[in-house]
Amino acid sequence: MTETSLPKSVTARAGTNIALVKYWGKRDAALNLPAAGSLSLTLANLGSETTVRFAGDAGTSDGRDRVLFAGAPAEAKFAARVQRFLDLVRTRAGLRLPAEVATTNTVPTAAGLASSAAGFAALALAASRAAGLRLSPAELSELARRGSGSAARSIFGGFAEMSTGTRTDGADAVAHGLLDEQSWDVRLCVAITAEGEKAVGSTAAMDRTALTSPYYQGWLASVPVDLEEARAAVLARDLAALGPIAERSALRMHACALAADPHILYWNPATVAAMSTVKGLRARGTLAFFTIDAGPHVKVLCRTADAPSVQASLAATPGVMRVLVLAPGPGANILHEK
Amino acid sequence: MTETSLPKSVTARAGTNIALVKYWGKRDAALNLPAAGSLSLTLANLGSETTVRFAGDAGTSDGRDRVLFAGAPAEAKFAARVQRFLDLVRTRAGLRLPAEVATTNTVPTAAGLASSAAGFAALALAASRAAGLRLSPAELSELARRGSGSAARSIFGGFAEMSTGTRTDGADAVAHGLLDEQSWDVRLCVAITAEGEKAVGSTAAMDRTALTSPYYQGWLASVPVDLEEARAAVLARDLAALGPIAERSALRMHACALAADPHILYWNPATVAAMSTVKGLRARGTLAFFTIDAGPHVKVLCRTADAPSVQASLAATPGVMRVLVLAPGPGANILHEK
Repeated sequence: MTETSLPKSVTARAGTNIALVKYWGKRDAALNLPAAGSLSLTLANLGSETTVRFAGDAGTSDGRDRVLFAGAPAEAKFAARVQRFLDLVRTRAGLRLPAEVATTNTVPTAAGLASSAAGFAALALAASRAAGLRLSPAELSELARRGSGSAARSIFGGFAEMSTGTRTDGADAVAHGLLDEQSWDVRLCVAITAEGEKAVGSTAAMDRTALTSPYYQGWLASVPVDLEEARAAVLARDLAALGPIAERSALRMHACALAADPHILYWNPATVAAMSTVKGLRARGTLAFFTIDAGPHVKVLCRTADAPSVQASLAATPGVMRVLVLAPGPGANILHEK
Repeated sequence: MTETSLPKSVTARAGTNIALVKYWGKRDAALNLPAAGSLSLTLANLGSETTVRFAGDAGTSDGRDRVLFAGAPAEAKFAARVQRFLDLVRTRAGLRLPAEVATTNTVPTAAGLASSAAGFAALALAASRAAGLRLSPAELSELARRGSGSAARSIFGGFAEMSTGTRTDGADAVAHGLLDEQSWDVRLCVAITAEGEKAVGSTAAMDRTALTSPYYQGWLASVPVDLEEARAAVLARDLAALGPIAERSALRMHACALAADPHILYWNPATVAAMSTVKGLRARGTLAFFTIDAGPHVKVLCRTADAPSVQASLAATPGVMRVLVLAPGPGANILHEK
C-alpha cells in the first residue's frame, strides 16, 4: 500500500473492561496467549482515545514512531511497547512508514482499572485502519491481545468471552461478544481505595504465580467451570447466578497470587472493608456482588436501579475515596477518519 | 482401678500454641487425624487450667460429668465435647466413674487464639492422671489430639512439630518437641483486631475447604516443604529463615480457604493494616514476621529485644485494639494433685 492511499489519520476509542471470570496466567508470553478463558464487561466512560497517522513525516527525527500520551511524549517503556505493537501492524499491512500515535486515557493508568485493555483495543483499531487494513472483530481481538491480554475483550461491547484457544499461533485466542451493552441493565460501581500505581504489575505477578504458587494448576482447572456457569448466567441475564461466580473467580485469582512466593497481596484495609459492605448490602436484600482486579479497588456489579444505594454504601465505607458508577459500554469504534 | 486408689483431684495447665507451619485439613474427622504436619510455638501466659476429679459424687444428679467453665456450668456443646473426651480416658483407664471438670481459660475463647489447643492439652494431662494413668508425652499428645487437633502440640513447650502419621488408628499422629521454651529468645506479639467469636469455626472451615477449594490438594502438597524448611530454621534458631516460611504457610492456608465455595475470609481491615505494618518494620531492618490463624488477629514473631518496638508499631496500626507480647512457654504440666 502506498502512502497516498492511506487515511491521513484515524481516531478510535475503546472502553476498559472488567473481568468477571478472571484472566490470570499466560500459556505463551510472546504471543500473550491466555492459559485459561475469561469473561468480562466492557464499560462506557472509562476508556482510551487514540489517533494514529502513518506517514514519512510522522515519526521522530531518528525515524522512530512518535508516541504521545495525554499530549506529551510518552515514557520510554510505554513508547517501546507501542512501537513493538505498531511493528505487528506494519508487518501485516506491508508498510514501512513511521507513525505518530496520540493517546489519551480516561482510566487511571496502571491502578488496577485495566487501562491497557482500553488502550490497546483503541490502538489496534486505529492503527490497523490507519495502515489501510480492514480487520474483522475477531482479527482485531487477536491483534489487540498482542498488546495486552485483556485488550482482546475490549473490542466487544457489553459482555464478552475470551477463549483460550488451542492453536500455537494464537489465531483462535480471541474474544467474542455474548450480550451487547444495550441488552442488560446493570451497573458497575467502582470503589477507589487508593491512589497511584499498583504494587506488582499484572504480567510480572502472573509470571511469579505460575512459577511459585502451589495453587496455579488448581486455578487453571477451576476456570472452565466458572466460565461455563458465568456464560449461562449472562445469557439468562441472571444477576443472582452471575454474582457469586464473579466473587468466586476474583477471590480464587487473588488467593492464587497470595500463595505465590514471595506472596502477592493487592488488598488494602479499605478493600476488605468494601467487601464487607457488599456482603452487608446482600444481607439486606440488594443484589450486589464484588470483583477485584490486580489492584486494591472493589468493583460492584448491581442492577441499575440499585446503583445509587450501592454507591452510597460504598462511599460511606472507611478508606473508600470515591465511587464511580459505570454503565456497560460499546466495543472499540472509529471516532473519525481523515 | 478402684475409686479409693485415685488421686482426689488433679490440676494441670497448658499454654496455647500458634502454628508457624499451619494445620489445615483432616485425614480422619473421627480421630482428628491431620492431613498434613504442622509446626508451632507454645506460649506462656495464655493458656488453660483444668482440674479433674473422678468420683461417684463428682457428676451431675443424672450421672453425667459435671463440666464447669470459668466457675459456671459450661454450655451444652462444650460440655458434650468434654464428656466425649472423658469417655476416651475412662475407656483407657477401665473406669466407670463420672467426673467433675473445672476449667478456666486465659485465652479469649474461640477468637482465633487457639483456646481449644490449651484446653484439651490441659484436660488430657489432668484427666489421664486423675484416672490413674501415667501417659508418656507422645501418648498424651495422641490423647489431646482427640479433643482438638492443635492440642497435640501444646503438650510440648517451645517449638513442636506435629506429624501426620500413617497409621489409621492415629497412634503416630502425635507431636514432638523441637526446641524447648528456654532455647531461643523470641517473642510473639499478638495484635488483637476484633472482639468476639470468629466467623467460621476451624473444623467447619477445614471441611468446606477440603470439599470445595480447588487449592486443597496444592495446599497439602506444599506443607512438607514448609515443614522441612521450618524445622531446619528452628533448629538453627534462624529467625530470618523461619519468618518467611511462616508467612508463606499462613497466607497459603488463608488463600486455600478463600478459594472455598462459599469463600472463607477471616480478615478484617485491621488484619491487612497489621500485615502492612510488619512489612514496614522489615523494610526498616527489624526481623518481624506475621502469621494469622483462623481469625482476624495478626501474630508477629520477633526477637525479644525487638518486641517493644514491634508492639508499639502494631499498637499504632489503625484498627488494632491491643497488643499482647507473649514468651515461649512450657508444655502441659501438673500444678497440683491431691
